Amino acid sequence: MGEAQIKDKLADYKQVIETNLENLFEEDSIPPELKQAMQYSLSAGGKRLRPVLCLAWGQHFGMQMEKILDFATSLELIHTYSLVHDDLPAMDNDDYRRGKPSNHIRFGESTAILAGDALLTEAFRLMLLNDLPPDRVRRAAAEVAAATGARGMVGGQVMDMNLFKEVDPGFEALKQMHCMKTAELIKVSCLSGAILAGAQDEDLDKVRTFGTSVGLAFQVADDILDVVGDNASLGKPVGSDEEAGKTTYPSLIGLEESKKTASDLIDKGLDTIKSYQGEHADFLVDISNYIVRRLE
Amino acid sequence: MGEAQIKDKLADYKQVIETNLENLFEEDSIPPELKQAMQYSLSAGGKRLRPVLCLAWGQHFGMQMEKILDFATSLELIHTYSLVHDDLPAMDNDDYRRGKPSNHIRFGESTAILAGDALLTEAFRLMLLNDLPPDRVRRAAAEVAAATGARGMVGGQVMDMNLFKEVDPGFEALKQMHCMKTAELIKVSCLSGAILAGAQDEDLDKVRTFGTSVGLAFQVADDILDVVGDNASLGKPVGSDEEAGKTTYPSLIGLEESKKTASDLIDKGLDTIKSYQGEHADFLVDISNYIVRRLE
Repeated sequence: MGEAQIKDKLADYKQVIETNLENLFEEDSIPPELKQAMQYSLSAGGKRLRPVLCLAWGQHFGMQMEKILDFATSLELIHTYSLVHDDLPAMDNDDYRRGKPSNHIRFGESTAILAGDALLTEAFRLMLLNDLPPDRVRRAAAEVAAATGARGMVGGQVMDMNLFKEVDPGFEALKQMHCMKTAELIKVSCLSGAILAGAQDEDLDKVRTFGTSVGLAFQVADDILDVVGDNASLGKPVGSDEEAGKTTYPSLIGLEESKKTASDLIDKGLDTIKSYQGEHADFLVDISNYIVRRLE
Repeated sequence: MGEAQIKDKLADYKQVIETNLENLFEEDSIPPELKQAMQYSLSAGGKRLRPVLCLAWGQHFGMQMEKILDFATSLELIHTYSLVHDDLPAMDNDDYRRGKPSNHIRFGESTAILAGDALLTEAFRLMLLNDLPPDRVRRAAAEVAAATGARGMVGGQVMDMNLFKEVDPGFEALKQMHCMKTAELIKVSCLSGAILAGAQDEDLDKVRTFGTSVGLAFQVADDILDVVGDNASLGKPVGSDEEAGKTTYPSLIGLEESKKTASDLIDKGLDTIKSYQGEHADFLVDISNYIVRRLE
C-alpha cells in the first residue's frame, strides 16, 4: 500500500473513532465543567493509533469493527488521561499540548486532575458495557488494567519522574521505562482487539510480541523525532527533550544507532506475524512500517 | 447485637481485609517508590467500611467471603486513591490524613498523583482477575466504574471543588454532591457484593436503595461529627469543615435537623431490607444503626 493510501485508511479509522468520542457523553449527568474538561482533551486530535490497532487486530481475527468500537475508544481515553496528568505542574509542567493550552492551564489544576481520573474510570465503564462475550471482555479489560497500572504505564511514568531527572540511569533502565510507559499500552491495544475477537492463545502470544516491539519502536521513533523532526508531526517543540535534560535513545546511543534500533524492532514485530494474510494484516504491516518511515 | 459485638465483628472483617491488602503487591514488578507510596496510604487504617459492606452483602446472598475478597478489597483501593487525590495541594491541600503526613507530603506531589492513578487502575485489575462467573464480574465492575467516575464520585468531587468554594449552592446541590461523592461508592460496595453472589434483579433494587440511603446517612453523619465529634473517631481535626468555609448539612439545616435526616435515611434503608433474615442481614442492620449511633 502506498503512503497516500495508508494515510487515507488511517484517516477513515480516525473519523470513526472521533465520531464515537464526540457522542460519548451526550445527554449525560456529568457536571458540565468536568464534561467540558474531558472533551477538551479528547478532542485535541492525534493519530488515534491505539484504537486503530485494537480495531485492526479485532478485524483480522474476524470481529466486526462496530462491536469493539467502544472498547477501542476506551484506549484513547486512557492515553488522554495519561497526557493530562503528565502535563500537570507537579509532573512535566507543560503549558501546551498539541498546540493548545494544556488541560490544567485551561481548566485549573484540580479540574485537570479530576478530568484525568474521570477519563480513566470512564474507560473501564466503556470496556465493560457491551454485548461481547463476558469472558473475553473480562480478560481483555484485565489485560488493559495490568498494562496501564503500577506494573505498566503508571509505573513507567514514576520511573520517568524519579529516576531520570537526577542521574544518568543507563540504557537498560531507559528501555524498561519506555517499555512500561509507552509500549505496554500499545501492546495491550493490539492484544485486547485479538482477545475480543476470540483469537487462540498461540495467536495472542504473537500479537503480544508484535505489540511490544512496535510499541517500543514507536517510543524510540518519538525520541528520534524530537531531534530531527518538525514541530507539526511531533506535536510538541523539536528539541524539548534535550532542553529538559531528558535521557533518550539518541542521547544514550546516538541518532544512527537509535534509527537502527527502531528499524530492528519493527522487523522483529513484523517477523512475528509474517504468517498472517489478508487486508487487515497487510494494513498492520503498513502502519508498522509507517511508524519508522516517519524518520526518513 | 450489642455494640461490643458489632465492634468485634467489624474488627474481624477488618483483619481479613488488611491481611489481603498487605499481600497485594508482594514479589511484584512495581517500581519500589510507587509501591511504597501505594502501601503507605493503604495501610493508614480506617474502618474498611466499603469492603465490609461488599463482603456482608455477598455472604447474605450465599457467596463465600474468600471468593469475593479481592473484589471487595478493590473498593478500598478506590476509596484510598480518592483520599490521596483529594488531599493534593490543588484540591483540599491537606497535610495530614488519619494523623499521618498525607501522601504528597511524604512522597512528593508527582508520586502522590501517580500512586492514586495506580491504585485506581489496580482496583480494576483486582476486580477482573478471579474465578467468579464472568457475566457477574463484568456487571459488578461496570457498576463500580459508573459509581466512581464522572457521574459519581469524581463528578461529586468536581462539584465540591468548583461549586462550594465561592457561593452558597443551596440544599439540593449539597445533597446531590454528597450522593455523588460519597453515597455512590457505598451503594456500589453493597450492590457489587450482591451481584457477585448472583442476587436477582428485584433484590438488587433493594440493595441499591439500601446502599444509597445508608451512604448518604454516612456523609451526613460525617458532617455532624465535624461539629460535635472528637478528633480520634473523625480521623481529622474537629471543626475543619467550618474553618474551610465548607457548606455542610449542619451549616445549611442546623445540627438537630441534620441528625434527624441521618436517622430518617437509615430508617429508609432498613425498611427496604426488612424482609431479609439471617446472620448477615442482622449484621447489616447493626452496622447501619452503628453509623448513626456514633452521633449520640
